[in-house]
Amino acid sequence: MSLILRRAVTIEWGDCDAAGIVYYPRFFALFDASTAALFAHATGMRQKAMEAHYNMAGIPMVDTRAKFHVPSSYGDEVIIETRVERFGTSSFDVHHRLLREGDVLGAECWETRVWISRKPDGAIYGATIPPDVIAKFNPA
Amino acid sequence: MSLILRRAVTIEWGDCDAAGIVYYPRFFALFDASTAALFAHATGMRQKAMEAHYNMAGIPMVDTRAKFHVPSSYGDEVIIETRVERFGTSSFDVHHRLLREGDVLGAECWETRVWISRKPDGAIYGATIPPDVIAKFNPA
Amino acid sequence: MSLILRRAVTIEWGDCDAAGIVYYPRFFALFDASTAALFAHATGMRQKAMEAHYNMAGIPMVDTRAKFHVPSSYGDEVIIETRVERFGTSSFDVHHRLLREGDVLGAECWETRVWISRKPDGAIYGATIPPDVIAKFNPA
Amino acid sequence: MSLILRRAVTIEWGDCDAAGIVYYPRFFALFDASTAALFAHATGMRQKAMEAHYNMAGIPMVDTRAKFHVPSSYGDEVIIETRVERFGTSSFDVHHRLLREGDVLGAECWETRVWISRKPDGAIYGATIPPDVIAKFNPA
Repeated sequence: MSLILRRAVTIEWGDCDAAGIVYYPRFFALFDASTAALFAHATGMRQKAMEAHYNMAGIPMVDTRAKFHVPSSYGDEVIIETRVERFGTSSFDVHHRLLREGDVLGAECWETRVWISRKPDGAIYGATIPPDVIAKFNPA
Repeated sequence: MSLILRRAVTIEWGDCDAAGIVYYPRFFALFDASTAALFAHATGMRQKAMEAHYNMAGIPMVDTRAKFHVPSSYGDEVIIETRVERFGTSSFDVHHRLLREGDVLGAECWETRVWISRKPDGAIYGATIPPDVIAKFNPA
Repeated sequence: MSLILRRAVTIEWGDCDAAGIVYYPRFFALFDASTAALFAHATGMRQKAMEAHYNMAGIPMVDTRAKFHVPSSYGDEVIIETRVERFGTSSFDVHHRLLREGDVLGAECWETRVWISRKPDGAIYGATIPPDVIAKFNPA
Repeated sequence: MSLILRRAVTIEWGDCDAAGIVYYPRFFALFDASTAALFAHATGMRQKAMEAHYNMAGIPMVDTRAKFHVPSSYGDEVIIETRVERFGTSSFDVHHRLLREGDVLGAECWETRVWISRKPDGAIYGATIPPDVIAKFNPA
């Protein structure tokens, strides 16, 4: 069973648009922060430590989709529930569920990212995700 | 044949992340502005005029997906090409293609939005898209 | 002695620019969220409850300045220390200090905001800040 | 007389907050883009070309202040007027005026930035602004 991170987020005034609800690009930033938090939780390292330890250069997005079911507004306390759904050789899929008032699904997001390393000349490439990273997400 | 808007955009320093490429949530804001520009171009009205003329209250996003093929960085001059792919009764689909150096597809985005109106008591609902709005996108 | 709010903030990847440090407009959003958190802490109400209770319509910014001393980067855990320095009739001044590694002053921000109410016809105006709001910030 | 750049900007839906007016941190991003545009106009180079040509590493902000006089909202077409007010050895001051409907001053911003270079070991430092850069701003 894959590790799940539940992160409490307060929706801020600055996250909202003129309709008084979250401006949807801000949701992608909140989900991005949840992916970072999940990796930090799983590996015990923030990204800079991972970059040094694994010679990685980031986990850029290649494909992401979100569905918005129930709007959120400033002052709302929501939960973002995040897990990795699939680890491939170099790519992996993340799923986020934003929950309101306990169990109401406010939004969902799917991400496909790539684990990137840097060659000696500085060029980046999609590298093999270290098996010990993957292992930390499946605490059997 | 549906109307296509081609909009020139300069990628700004503030659009980029620590990898020096566009932070992907910013792409959604750029695509959102392109949808607004397409509607302004088609109808000859900016959103506030549309709100008054059609008693509409916005075109919120319900589902959006983007694929990122080739990264862009600050100083890049790109073209975003936008069109409506489908008009339903109350919802519609938008497609964006971000082009680099002429013809290189840097990113793509799909959107499903809803045409929203407001009841006398202030409640919003998915309203029928006015036929004369739809007609303006198909200048056949 | 005025109430001080100390708020822990994690600098996110998406807060940083191509130099790998916080893009300074994002600092203003973080400071804005700290002002909101201070008012919520002092009054025991989030902004929507304050809007209803006090017939207020927001605390828009009229003048803000920030100095950036030591940059912050993604993964940094910082503290933002916030207090109201002055309450006038309708305006008030807020001061933020962003602290790194305990005591290093990373950035500072000063804000002048106005307490806004709404007339029956919807027009906004700078209203008198309710004395019981001010009292909550000076818990003598 | 110093070079002045006048840049037309459309205020987007995504620039606005729940009060329907520009969320002030977004103004700082718009002003930042105007400073970039002014340097590009003056030098004939976008920032990446300047980085290579002058061995510079950016012009980070050290102190910025803005006053907001008249709010702007989505769909507004505004002009941002930008010039360098002072060149020091390594620092310089920029002033922005945001104009609405011709001549109404909507907002103003002052910036102090530093011209940064990189040592062979990668460390950054405040370098002397190249005289030929300064000369391009005073086309006397």
